[in-house]
Amino acid sequence: MSLDWLSTPCAQPDGTQLEVAAARQMQLTKPPGSLGQLEALAIELASLQHTSTPAVDRVWISVFAADHGVAEENVSAYPQVVTGEMVRNFATGGAAISVLARTLGANLEVVNLGTVNDPGEIPGVRRAIIASSTANFCVEPAMTSEQLEKALAFGADSVRAAKKANAQLFIGGEMGIANTTAAAALASALLEEPPSCLAGAGTGLDSAGIQHKVSVLERALAKHANANTPLEQLRCLGGFEIAALAGAFIAAAQAGLPILVDGFITTTAALTAVRIQPDVRKWLLFAHRSKEHGHARVLNGLNAEPLLDLNMRLGEASGAATAVPLLRLACALHNGMATFEQAGVSTA
Amino acid sequence: MSLDWLSTPCAQPDGTQLEVAAARQMQLTKPPGSLGQLEALAIELASLQHTSTPAVDRVWISVFAADHGVAEENVSAYPQVVTGEMVRNFATGGAAISVLARTLGANLEVVNLGTVNDPGEIPGVRRAIIASSTANFCVEPAMTSEQLEKALAFGADSVRAAKKANAQLFIGGEMGIANTTAAAALASALLEEPPSCLAGAGTGLDSAGIQHKVSVLERALAKHANANTPLEQLRCLGGFEIAALAGAFIAAAQAGLPILVDGFITTTAALTAVRIQPDVRKWLLFAHRSKEHGHARVLNGLNAEPLLDLNMRLGEASGAATAVPLLRLACALHNGMATFEQAGVSTA
Repeated sequence: MSLDWLSTPCAQPDGTQLEVAAARQMQLTKPPGSLGQLEALAIELASLQHTSTPAVDRVWISVFAADHGVAEENVSAYPQVVTGEMVRNFATGGAAISVLARTLGANLEVVNLGTVNDPGEIPGVRRAIIASSTANFCVEPAMTSEQLEKALAFGADSVRAAKKANAQLFIGGEMGIANTTAAAALASALLEEPPSCLAGAGTGLDSAGIQHKVSVLERALAKHANANTPLEQLRCLGGFEIAALAGAFIAAAQAGLPILVDGFITTTAALTAVRIQPDVRKWLLFAHRSKEHGHARVLNGLNAEPLLDLNMRLGEASGAATAVPLLRLACALHNGMATFEQAGVSTA
Repeated sequence: MSLDWLSTPCAQPDGTQLEVAAARQMQLTKPPGSLGQLEALAIELASLQHTSTPAVDRVWISVFAADHGVAEENVSAYPQVVTGEMVRNFATGGAAISVLARTLGANLEVVNLGTVNDPGEIPGVRRAIIASSTANFCVEPAMTSEQLEKALAFGADSVRAAKKANAQLFIGGEMGIANTTAAAALASALLEEPPSCLAGAGTGLDSAGIQHKVSVLERALAKHANANTPLEQLRCLGGFEIAALAGAFIAAAQAGLPILVDGFITTTAALTAVRIQPDVRKWLLFAHRSKEHGHARVLNGLNAEPLLDLNMRLGEASGAATAVPLLRLACALHNGMATFEQAGVSTA
């Protein structure tokens, strides 16, 4: 295995289709700009999909699950066994993302990258086990170089499957007890902002719990102060699912597949991907502003304005899935509305 | 005709179903509260629909079109003929709301209450002609008492049709050149706030145009300073479609049909309805924050926090339609997720 594939250039959006779509929006029977972000979305999707009729009928969702060594520092409100238990819940249809994917008619892939409580072979779950957990990054790097390479490649595998299924949009999600701690550590290193700006309640810490989380993050960042490339920061402070998401986002951008980014953890993975290869940014659409404290900082780091702000903070790609209908409606309006000329409506 | 029906009491939400739904949300496999406003929506819909399994599969959208005498004061960027032209566009499927309704599988009713440029009989358009236009409220009351009664009743007729179709959600929309001026006048009177706080760009005025609109509003409000009940303010300063929306909202609340409120004009109609009968408020859900300047004030007047903020400002119920998938996903999650016990997932 190698990391060479990470430097393959990204695909490029289509500047001509961008102009065609923007011109069309000016001709549709509405005051120019009156559909707000729905207009911008349709124009961007036309450019990314290289088409005059953008569509997001076929949506691919990959949820990556993994456990975190740093959970032993008591940074989560839930026990670590929940990660493996939720893998089963994703596959059997009871989790939020399972319901959302079903309702949207989206393809849901569940990827088990390694959980302390291994649920074993489950129909509908891709086993891509790297280890039962990352290492506790307060003590040593979260991953070995080989583990990082595997995680990135497993993410890229999901994009290959999405492309094979002719997906028009890629969504990545995550599950892993303690992964807001890993994402906060990584974001803190990438953004060079103090842990207190990135640490939040996660699954439901109180203020004392958050304070403890900050102290854990400070130890981790001091321990890995020498990690000074995005890949090395990802290896030392990330998690298997965060690395898989970063790999998936890079692969999607290389494949020309638009990406809809979920919440705090996936946005941190997206920031990592952009730091590894800046052109990935062109392929990112942002679904929602999470209630998780650090999300706003990471969004700022990507100059991102998400579509929704519904106080969601679940992860699992749930926020991204919730925004899918907005993209679909944006495309339907763009493709289906009459122009002033077609409808015989007078202009201003 | 009479106004007696306006004082029929509203239906009451179901407090027991509210508690049942809130308890269920605590049992679903996610940290409590992590689905944010989607949880609150499901709980509210369960209460409004008196059911443990809320649903918004059957959505009824009524778009009311009408012309405004105040258009002669040059308060719109578009010529007045557009109202009648758009009635045809709604019915033939080329308008934004036509596309949205089609995509959502919602029932779209178009109601022509009177346009200067009469499109005549069109399949799919209910003719409920009151007059070709309201009067210019800078000169005289916008409506006679008889016209107001008709408009309110025509709105209630739409709710009867929605109920007959077993609709689970009622959405009202509007179209009428100069109707942001009418809505701003009415909101200014209802809220006792100066016109400058309520006047916005409408279909696309520049700052000089908005300043002119404010001066028109000031003349109108001075003219009708004696109008001191919501009904009289509606008669003097409203429009046929605004009155029809207010009538529809009151009728929907009386019938126990939840209402999803669109943008500036429909929210002003909703405020009017609530001033006429305060219990209407319990039946209102708010879809989006419009870019139209005055909307925030009217939302404040109703203590409303909308779901979306996408810089939309089209009207036609387009913002409300855009929010429908959020309600549907909220219901799907509420009804379809597994509990911790069902899924065998450990709790915090």
